[in-house]
Amino acid sequence: MPILIRNGTIVNDDQIFKSDVRVHDGTIVEIAPTLTPIDGEEIVDATDRLVIPGGIDPHTHMQMPYMGEVTKDDFLSGTQAAVAGGTTMIIDFCCPNHRNGESLMDGYKKWRSWADPKVVCDYGLSVAITMWRPETAEQMAIITSKEYGVNSFKFYMAYEGTLMVRDDELYRGMQECAKLRALPRVHAENGMVIKEREKDLLAIGVTGPEGHTQARPEEIEAEATNRACTLAQQANCPLYVVHVMTRGAAAVISQHRSQGNVVFGEPIAAGLALDGSHYYHEDWLHAARYVMSPPLSRDPTTPELLMKLIAAGELHLIGTDNCTYDCRQKSLGKGDFTKIPNGINGVEDRMSIVWEKGVHSGLIDPMRYVAVTSTTAAKIFNIYPKKGRIAVGSDADIVVFNPNKTRKISKNTHHHNLDFNIFEGIECHGVPEVTISRGRIVWANGQLHTTPGAGKFVHLPVNSPIVYGSYEKRAEVSTSFF
Amino acid sequence: MPILIRNGTIVNDDQIFKSDVRVHDGTIVEIAPTLTPIDGEEIVDATDRLVIPGGIDPHTHMQMPYMGEVTKDDFLSGTQAAVAGGTTMIIDFCCPNHRNGESLMDGYKKWRSWADPKVVCDYGLSVAITMWRPETAEQMAIITSKEYGVNSFKFYMAYEGTLMVRDDELYRGMQECAKLRALPRVHAENGMVIKEREKDLLAIGVTGPEGHTQARPEEIEAEATNRACTLAQQANCPLYVVHVMTRGAAAVISQHRSQGNVVFGEPIAAGLALDGSHYYHEDWLHAARYVMSPPLSRDPTTPELLMKLIAAGELHLIGTDNCTYDCRQKSLGKGDFTKIPNGINGVEDRMSIVWEKGVHSGLIDPMRYVAVTSTTAAKIFNIYPKKGRIAVGSDADIVVFNPNKTRKISKNTHHHNLDFNIFEGIECHGVPEVTISRGRIVWANGQLHTTPGAGKFVHLPVNSPIVYGSYEKRAEVSTSFF
Amino acid sequence: MPILIRNGTIVNDDQIFKSDVRVHDGTIVEIAPTLTPIDGEEIVDATDRLVIPGGIDPHTHMQMPYMGEVTKDDFLSGTQAAVAGGTTMIIDFCCPNHRNGESLMDGYKKWRSWADPKVVCDYGLSVAITMWRPETAEQMAIITSKEYGVNSFKFYMAYEGTLMVRDDELYRGMQECAKLRALPRVHAENGMVIKEREKDLLAIGVTGPEGHTQARPEEIEAEATNRACTLAQQANCPLYVVHVMTRGAAAVISQHRSQGNVVFGEPIAAGLALDGSHYYHEDWLHAARYVMSPPLSRDPTTPELLMKLIAAGELHLIGTDNCTYDCRQKSLGKGDFTKIPNGINGVEDRMSIVWEKGVHSGLIDPMRYVAVTSTTAAKIFNIYPKKGRIAVGSDADIVVFNPNKTRKISKNTHHHNLDFNIFEGIECHGVPEVTISRGRIVWANGQLHTTPGAGKFVHLPVNSPIVYGSYEKRAEVSTSFF
Amino acid sequence: MPILIRNGTIVNDDQIFKSDVRVHDGTIVEIAPTLTPIDGEEIVDATDRLVIPGGIDPHTHMQMPYMGEVTKDDFLSGTQAAVAGGTTMIIDFCCPNHRNGESLMDGYKKWRSWADPKVVCDYGLSVAITMWRPETAEQMAIITSKEYGVNSFKFYMAYEGTLMVRDDELYRGMQECAKLRALPRVHAENGMVIKEREKDLLAIGVTGPEGHTQARPEEIEAEATNRACTLAQQANCPLYVVHVMTRGAAAVISQHRSQGNVVFGEPIAAGLALDGSHYYHEDWLHAARYVMSPPLSRDPTTPELLMKLIAAGELHLIGTDNCTYDCRQKSLGKGDFTKIPNGINGVEDRMSIVWEKGVHSGLIDPMRYVAVTSTTAAKIFNIYPKKGRIAVGSDADIVVFNPNKTRKISKNTHHHNLDFNIFEGIECHGVPEVTISRGRIVWANGQLHTTPGAGKFVHLPVNSPIVYGSYEKRAEVSTSFF
Repeated sequence: MPILIRNGTIVNDDQIFKSDVRVHDGTIVEIAPTLTPIDGEEIVDATDRLVIPGGIDPHTHMQMPYMGEVTKDDFLSGTQAAVAGGTTMIIDFCCPNHRNGESLMDGYKKWRSWADPKVVCDYGLSVAITMWRPETAEQMAIITSKEYGVNSFKFYMAYEGTLMVRDDELYRGMQECAKLRALPRVHAENGMVIKEREKDLLAIGVTGPEGHTQARPEEIEAEATNRACTLAQQANCPLYVVHVMTRGAAAVISQHRSQGNVVFGEPIAAGLALDGSHYYHEDWLHAARYVMSPPLSRDPTTPELLMKLIAAGELHLIGTDNCTYDCRQKSLGKGDFTKIPNGINGVEDRMSIVWEKGVHSGLIDPMRYVAVTSTTAAKIFNIYPKKGRIAVGSDADIVVFNPNKTRKISKNTHHHNLDFNIFEGIECHGVPEVTISRGRIVWANGQLHTTPGAGKFVHLPVNSPIVYGSYEKRAEVSTSFF
Repeated sequence: MPILIRNGTIVNDDQIFKSDVRVHDGTIVEIAPTLTPIDGEEIVDATDRLVIPGGIDPHTHMQMPYMGEVTKDDFLSGTQAAVAGGTTMIIDFCCPNHRNGESLMDGYKKWRSWADPKVVCDYGLSVAITMWRPETAEQMAIITSKEYGVNSFKFYMAYEGTLMVRDDELYRGMQECAKLRALPRVHAENGMVIKEREKDLLAIGVTGPEGHTQARPEEIEAEATNRACTLAQQANCPLYVVHVMTRGAAAVISQHRSQGNVVFGEPIAAGLALDGSHYYHEDWLHAARYVMSPPLSRDPTTPELLMKLIAAGELHLIGTDNCTYDCRQKSLGKGDFTKIPNGINGVEDRMSIVWEKGVHSGLIDPMRYVAVTSTTAAKIFNIYPKKGRIAVGSDADIVVFNPNKTRKISKNTHHHNLDFNIFEGIECHGVPEVTISRGRIVWANGQLHTTPGAGKFVHLPVNSPIVYGSYEKRAEVSTSFF
Repeated sequence: MPILIRNGTIVNDDQIFKSDVRVHDGTIVEIAPTLTPIDGEEIVDATDRLVIPGGIDPHTHMQMPYMGEVTKDDFLSGTQAAVAGGTTMIIDFCCPNHRNGESLMDGYKKWRSWADPKVVCDYGLSVAITMWRPETAEQMAIITSKEYGVNSFKFYMAYEGTLMVRDDELYRGMQECAKLRALPRVHAENGMVIKEREKDLLAIGVTGPEGHTQARPEEIEAEATNRACTLAQQANCPLYVVHVMTRGAAAVISQHRSQGNVVFGEPIAAGLALDGSHYYHEDWLHAARYVMSPPLSRDPTTPELLMKLIAAGELHLIGTDNCTYDCRQKSLGKGDFTKIPNGINGVEDRMSIVWEKGVHSGLIDPMRYVAVTSTTAAKIFNIYPKKGRIAVGSDADIVVFNPNKTRKISKNTHHHNLDFNIFEGIECHGVPEVTISRGRIVWANGQLHTTPGAGKFVHLPVNSPIVYGSYEKRAEVSTSFF
Repeated sequence: MPILIRNGTIVNDDQIFKSDVRVHDGTIVEIAPTLTPIDGEEIVDATDRLVIPGGIDPHTHMQMPYMGEVTKDDFLSGTQAAVAGGTTMIIDFCCPNHRNGESLMDGYKKWRSWADPKVVCDYGLSVAITMWRPETAEQMAIITSKEYGVNSFKFYMAYEGTLMVRDDELYRGMQECAKLRALPRVHAENGMVIKEREKDLLAIGVTGPEGHTQARPEEIEAEATNRACTLAQQANCPLYVVHVMTRGAAAVISQHRSQGNVVFGEPIAAGLALDGSHYYHEDWLHAARYVMSPPLSRDPTTPELLMKLIAAGELHLIGTDNCTYDCRQKSLGKGDFTKIPNGINGVEDRMSIVWEKGVHSGLIDPMRYVAVTSTTAAKIFNIYPKKGRIAVGSDADIVVFNPNKTRKISKNTHHHNLDFNIFEGIECHGVPEVTISRGRIVWANGQLHTTPGAGKFVHLPVNSPIVYGSYEKRAEVSTSFF
């Protein structure tokens, strides 16, 4: 059914203007100050509302198996939570068991088989490389082909013994990415030091969630971020740093960018709203819920600082690292904080949290809001302006957003398959009232109207202009520099 | 006559795509992969060319009277040089004799009377405030009205005794700008120290052009830039720093931005291509030609560094400070470098210089090139997307740009009314082959087709979203912070 | 009477060792592991105590007339408080009424006439220059002669209209200092902006002490510090920044030092122990007591940060800005915070505060403690090793310090002529138990044994090696750099 | 034979004064303005000369076996070169074959057996730990006992496969150092990335010495330095970074220091005088002579910058990394730069180079010169004031230094067992004319008067106050921070 959105204010990352929007067959077909309704068209009244591109969450782990458990949000509840919160696309991480010889392609197929029948909005995949094997380079080439549609790889510098790669592996991976014009994304922590600190803490009897943050001081994230940036610069390769949690890590990214390197920094919703005092909460379970890596910063000024860097353009887009383990799963770490499954929610609340802490707090303007919640992700993952923009010809992934309404976040009302919410009780200005995915209303009046499998896998082409636009010349210059 | 640009690659600041473009009645009316020519339509073949928004030079001084002389480029030769180089709009500085009581409005009218009959492309005005007088605030309010169309003011922290304002005057001016949602632009140098150093240098017998750079070491620009940023932050006001010439000044801007302040930094073409070694040239006249303030950096790594900061988003748009005095005028400073008229050319060569030093050198991609030569200026001065974008409905200010052609810059071929060119002999990749202003071809096949007065004065509205988009909330927060 | 200090641990800025110390005739005459008492010698048992050089407070204002009032501590109570707290020398500021034509020499004589009959320990003078007059340079030359014994000058960048100098005056002053090998000391704040902010705050009805900190945000100190450092670098002159109160100002000093400039940074006792939350105390008088300029930082992490910079060698010596106005005087600012006399106490408590916040907190070691409370001041003011060292031949200004004892600071027990104490209630480890000034015990067993006029004026010679040691070569290089 | 040094100017790190000096039995016995010669006393006329503490070179590799070769300077020629250049003590690196199970004690004994019979001046040892083995911690405890007299350990972050330790090994090593109050010293480069880059360069046919610098860009040193500083901070341990060669590495040290960490940075003579352009010299052998790791910086501004940081106190003492391979040995790398033995000379020329580039260039004063060439090393290695100071009771390691004389460095006149000199042709102000080691004149009138084995092994005690002076309190605070 065609849709006409009337009387709204369109916000793109470059412009704010009043206009009506007509949607047909999954696509935006007309934008004009005043459009006359057509028979059979559903009318969405956007008076005093903003009409913005649907959110793109570049960092989720739905249905993720790790350490014998699987995250509670699968691709159904996870994408339902997404659209209820104004997000119409996620980029999820596929983690093949490459250490044990599983090919990247087999891992990819497994993830597709999990996601395709369930997703209620579009999604893409980023593939993790957890070891450098003789066949890895070849598989990277295959999986970045049009057929597979992967244009980024994830490397872990933490989780020694399971996911972590060594510096030489990371360096080789980056070189291969550059060759394929794919984007390496790193989880930046010094896994080796963390492992030692964990041992020491357990040895002196620190077993609770506070041990998690004590094993991973801020400096450890900054160190690894600096190492990743340096290796990328050496490999003449762009870089994407996931979940930037601290002042130090952000400063490092900024410093490397000012030396001419292409580095993108992704803070997450949790890091923009919460701090690490939760790890010291007297209730074990409360504290355990916030266990994620890198941990929330214990410096209470960090969330605002990160938003200022979003404003300054030194950080670039906002994800969530949505990776939900419920209370039972969290409790597996009772008596040993290293066994608490790492992960927090975020995909549903990201859009509201960023508006509250960014726009409502006077730190960013609405155009920047759209950029960091949607457009920049679309550009980096090379699907712009199909995604990330309200424009004729773009996918009809649209949110009608009410900046004057507030809502209080709660596990009682959220759509996650999760028995708590880390943002519980936070009141946010900025409510996504209507969400349209691929031209269909999937969220309105506080009700979901979703169909499992209605979302599509989006092939992400390599060689994104915003990532590799200067690469050819740069590579020439770099070589001749020798 | 309507125009059809065929087979080109359109580059906007957010996207690169192949498409034809149809222009009619001064406006872009159609963009599509393949457009069929209409009778009477002029065909421009853009095969293997880029089709980009016409350049906007945010910083020129045409026909500028100063110290008894007037710059050689008036609004005719100046705008002819502009369009020959792919620039279709300039923002010129109107400098009322406010110290002697001339009102801002009278100064404005004088500039309009000089420019309107001569300009061959569009232009806007920025108005200088050289003293804080009882009537200044009121005049600022008037001149930022729709009738006058001024949305920015220039403040000089140099030229003590003529143009310079004191810190309290600058602070008051910024407060007034914030109230009016206009943008203060500063020339950042410590005029008081310069004055003393000039005296000292002359006293010890340094009279040549090298004295100019010795009187104005880099640190003096960085100091004033820091002061301006601090004052703007105190006044809760955005800031635009003109002609950022040095590493130190750029670092200061970046630092203040990362604290959440809205600051824009404008390097100029000369600063991206040249260094201060020219001031020590054995030929007095050669050296004198490069005299401008702040001077070119004597650090030979500065030009590349500034371009890297352009890439990183820590500097934002590129001007020229085009302010041309010829050899006779420069020679007035023989025997006393303080009497050499300050100023250099640039408006014609900016587009080629930036391509050569930015894109061809592998430091920025073509989208960023468009952003920093055109789009960002349009956004800041609040005329986007009318200017600064190839889009349906936008003004037909278009350049067909050949990235594979080179040209050698020379006074013999340039269109300035000037008997030298500071870029003499530099070979640039990237040649503007066709320039379209307001829908008419004004430059093609190496020939100008211009009509004096064909350009229009563009009213620049206050309250630009990219400048003041977060201001309302910010002001609330700031006040409550007390 | 000769004194023998037995069984103590001597701490100098370079060494810690156990030794006895013999004092005779105002001088240290013998240092050896075991000294046999001589008849008539007074024995001081220093078992488990440290024997350290008497503190030197480089920044006091005793008996200071300003705005119609005089500080409560004159040179008697002020130096009594000093020796009770383990400080045996102060460097006070002489402020001639130079604006109204009083010569530096006349001001100096006035201060000498006030101090000489009263001081109970040694003192020196630093002379303020509040305006650049035709005769200023000549008077600076005279007053730095051996006869007068002044080797530093104070310049205010705040207090517009009374004490403040303009940038060109400051620059000239620095040039003159360099010529005379004297040291310029600056109070770094932007007086012009403060003046405007004060007007604005009063205009909107902010009249209480919180207005003091709101008129002087941290950025204003950092800005002026940067300006002072830049001017000094331009004048090829060393610099001493008094009362460094904030992170930003300290960062600026560090940055300029790393560029090769000689800059000394002096935090004060108050800034190492207190933060600006006091300005918001509900009791007007409580808040008013903390009014000083620049104000205490409102960032609660500042005191520890400043101490870390002391540890790192990026800040260099610790003063107090002791300038005491009592409750009656503070109350003159009721209804208008700009009329609250600026100043706080500190000279008595500095040694304990620095031990507590520095050594006891694990941030600095005892040698660094001695350096920053005594030795570095002696070096900078060119009286080392006569002062600032426990060595044979040095003045017998000695403190027997008990690091294992604590005391609680209180107005009830202090020796200031002041009806409050800003450190009230702070418990400090590290108590000066015996103070010896010029070979006489002036403080022991909690009792003063002082004689007005027993202290001497110390002539401070210009051309201190630590300040000007590389100057001659530097000046050569600098000139040839042109 | 007793010695009387007359009419000289003594320079210590804290003071400059004219005085005579009497030496007897290896010790300084008297210092006074005028001393009367005693019968049989050798008179050294120091008129117009400086009398300074003998240099201490904290970083040499004499007789070092590596990759099948041994460095040309053994402990005889090496220490002869030292005293000829005004250095009277070296701290050499003992590198046990710990990977293959050799104990630290056995390695130590081997080194002692090589050095003791040959040294002509005093020396100490620092012991390298090249792998973390079950017995390592215990051996570290033994070797830091009084019997062995080792108080520092070296860790390599480069030379993957032979000397390099992993991050977890380094972290454990640092923790052990902290426990023992010994000082970890790191060679900071990312060995894993270097290994990969070397392979890549050889693969594309880069085989010459330029490959050495291309395999080890500056960023790789800065990265590892940052990692080492972070690990030390995590381990609550001081740190000493050897051979700081680049701006980036120095900046990292400064940054970590300003966070309160105890970090010492050691640039070397080569890095203060030379840059990396040598690696591109057309003569293969010329280029190969400069091969050392990390390589000389290719940024020509680096040497001056490092000296400025020496001035600012952000770098702390100057070594040489003296490790001499002759032309034959260097030629082993013909056709494969990775096989060029790494190492350069320096121990003889350090004192002159630092005077020329530091004092003569106006960047540091003579007191700072003494500090960074001698005193600070004595303090860090805990043998002050026995070494590093001209004082009664100190060892008579003294140099009579002529700041007004120049000498040209050349292989033809040096005392190394080496057929080239990397400083060939550099003219230095500042010539050590007389060197006294342990009270005997070993160098005078351009002649050596040395006796193999006359030097002594100096036991270096742990727990140096300048290194660990705040550690006890710091450790308490750190633990309670959890």
